[in-house]
Amino acid sequence: MAILFRELERDKETMARRGELKTPHGVVETPIFMPVGTQATVKAMTPEEVWDMGGRLILSNTYHLYLRPGHGIIAGAGGLHRFMNWKGPILTDSGGFQVFSLGPLRKIEEEGVWFRSHIDGSEHYLSPEKAVSIQEALGSDIAMAFDECTPYPCTYDYARESVGRTTRWAERSKRARQREDQALFGIIQGSVFRDLRERSCSELVDLDFPGYGIGGLSVGEPKDLMYEVLEYTVPLIPADRPRYLMGVGSPDCLLEGVARGVDMFDCVLPTRIARNGTVFTRDGRLVVRNAEYARDYGPLDADCGCYTCRNYTRAYIRHLIKADEILGVRLTTIHNLYFVLNLMHNIRVAIGEGRFSAYKKEFLSRFRMN
Amino acid sequence: MAILFRELERDKETMARRGELKTPHGVVETPIFMPVGTQATVKAMTPEEVWDMGGRLILSNTYHLYLRPGHGIIAGAGGLHRFMNWKGPILTDSGGFQVFSLGPLRKIEEEGVWFRSHIDGSEHYLSPEKAVSIQEALGSDIAMAFDECTPYPCTYDYARESVGRTTRWAERSKRARQREDQALFGIIQGSVFRDLRERSCSELVDLDFPGYGIGGLSVGEPKDLMYEVLEYTVPLIPADRPRYLMGVGSPDCLLEGVARGVDMFDCVLPTRIARNGTVFTRDGRLVVRNAEYARDYGPLDADCGCYTCRNYTRAYIRHLIKADEILGVRLTTIHNLYFVLNLMHNIRVAIGEGRFSAYKKEFLSRFRMN
Repeated sequence: MAILFRELERDKETMARRGELKTPHGVVETPIFMPVGTQATVKAMTPEEVWDMGGRLILSNTYHLYLRPGHGIIAGAGGLHRFMNWKGPILTDSGGFQVFSLGPLRKIEEEGVWFRSHIDGSEHYLSPEKAVSIQEALGSDIAMAFDECTPYPCTYDYARESVGRTTRWAERSKRARQREDQALFGIIQGSVFRDLRERSCSELVDLDFPGYGIGGLSVGEPKDLMYEVLEYTVPLIPADRPRYLMGVGSPDCLLEGVARGVDMFDCVLPTRIARNGTVFTRDGRLVVRNAEYARDYGPLDADCGCYTCRNYTRAYIRHLIKADEILGVRLTTIHNLYFVLNLMHNIRVAIGEGRFSAYKKEFLSRFRMN
Repeated sequence: MAILFRELERDKETMARRGELKTPHGVVETPIFMPVGTQATVKAMTPEEVWDMGGRLILSNTYHLYLRPGHGIIAGAGGLHRFMNWKGPILTDSGGFQVFSLGPLRKIEEEGVWFRSHIDGSEHYLSPEKAVSIQEALGSDIAMAFDECTPYPCTYDYARESVGRTTRWAERSKRARQREDQALFGIIQGSVFRDLRERSCSELVDLDFPGYGIGGLSVGEPKDLMYEVLEYTVPLIPADRPRYLMGVGSPDCLLEGVARGVDMFDCVLPTRIARNGTVFTRDGRLVVRNAEYARDYGPLDADCGCYTCRNYTRAYIRHLIKADEILGVRLTTIHNLYFVLNLMHNIRVAIGEGRFSAYKKEFLSRFRMN
């Protein structure tokens, strides 16, 4: 296995670190936020727009692409990169999270999971081997092992069983690999139970993956509990492997995650709330669709240098959102993605300049998520 | 009244002509197609995208902007150009067409029209004076006089009465003007009755407008009937005034309209069918959402140089449209607008090079709208 990750710099006061991740589609700097392109598109954006605002590594969803358009059609186009015209690297999840989120629509067995499509109700089957084979057909740079993502809360007994299954599935995922140009990450589970996280970590590290996802977090537990899990989990992952906190993307959590040694993040939050008319500002969330902004001729965020803030007012964006105009969603999406990508850029710079803690403190002193 | 229009070149075989239209926001070349920005946005596009594909003069709708966000909010932003960040000229319609399309929701009197909002059912009133005053608040470069647009079919008697009212309203619209930096066009009505069109034309020409809309066409009548009306109407408009055929934008009609002396067009058709997954190609319409394109890895139109055709396949665009992804609508909208704007560019070049008839014949020999 070629070396995938290199740590470049470590913060003195926290676990934060700067590094680089090598992929067949280029080297990316970490810590990194990955915009989510669930259905082979970062919602409302062109690939150039994502790239121009600093997006370098994007995530796409195996479950969705398997169901629609089907990985065969994407393979026929020459793989996901060519299909969607994205020139940078892509990480695909394993489909596990989506399948387990289906609730009554799925049935878990040792061999794999039966589930019904959220699109047309048709019956499907996903196993570690199949998840790898689909991801190889998609041709992502980084694939994820098929895991079981436990809900929050869940019982200790259930979480224990699930950790065992996730390890066995990780092993099968690894054995199923055929492409040498795709890295496969293992996913650490164990809910909020320290000994289970430790066991999951130790078993997966034994399997020697080139990188590790930390799964089963940001699923409803209090943020402090998530931070606590990170504090005892991250140190167990070998320092030369990237640590990917799955499904996290709120600005405060990004800073807290980096402080606890996380290198990679993904989340639909910035783009999802954007489509609903909510944007990030230096002070926190702002619901621009609210009536109070009807005659507000200032930008979304006076500190922001994004295309939206350089050219449009809150009054105009509010009008577009109220009138259900696509441009409204485009402008809020551009702003929120830029906000998060720019935050990660500032974080990397701050780590490099040895002032990450000060930067984090300053940012969080004014930023309110509520 | 400063000179607004200059004829530069006239075709030898047809009524086609090349000219230029001077506005406070720049000179535009005619014949021109105006992309429609109903709610202060060309649906799914940024202003830069519209400009970069050759859009120079856009149309926006007084009725929609009056109801939402309200012309006061737009005036407060410094006018429509600044509100929507469009640097080129804007033409606004008078709201007449929309109000008359409301059917049972409106009541016509000599003084004006009572109508109910399609958004919330609230009651509103529009008159020639009010339509001018709203358009002056919006600050468009070209405003349209408040007219009555007759449906098709309609009785001769109704059309006759309507022509009289439209003339009286045109006179009142003209008297209501206060801004010297906004041109006001009259609108010729008369349905498909030659003597009524002649009367409408003659009365409006007496009022000496700097340009003339030809209204009440493309409302359901056969295309040949529309062409016939143009043939006897256009020659009655002074040659030094631009002729604007309202609501027409299908490629075949653009060519036939230019051949009959039309200088300006607007239509939602290219953008509306795009959102529905239908695109123009050199051969006519193509419904890219159809299953037959699921594995078609070619561009929408092999002859096209637009962003969409340079970068994406039919298979990908079909996937996006089927999955309700905004990027799908963006890509088809870019393509269709480019197609029509590029057609107008080619028409202007062909007129300039004295080969308009040949160009028209060649284009129509392969293009099928069905």
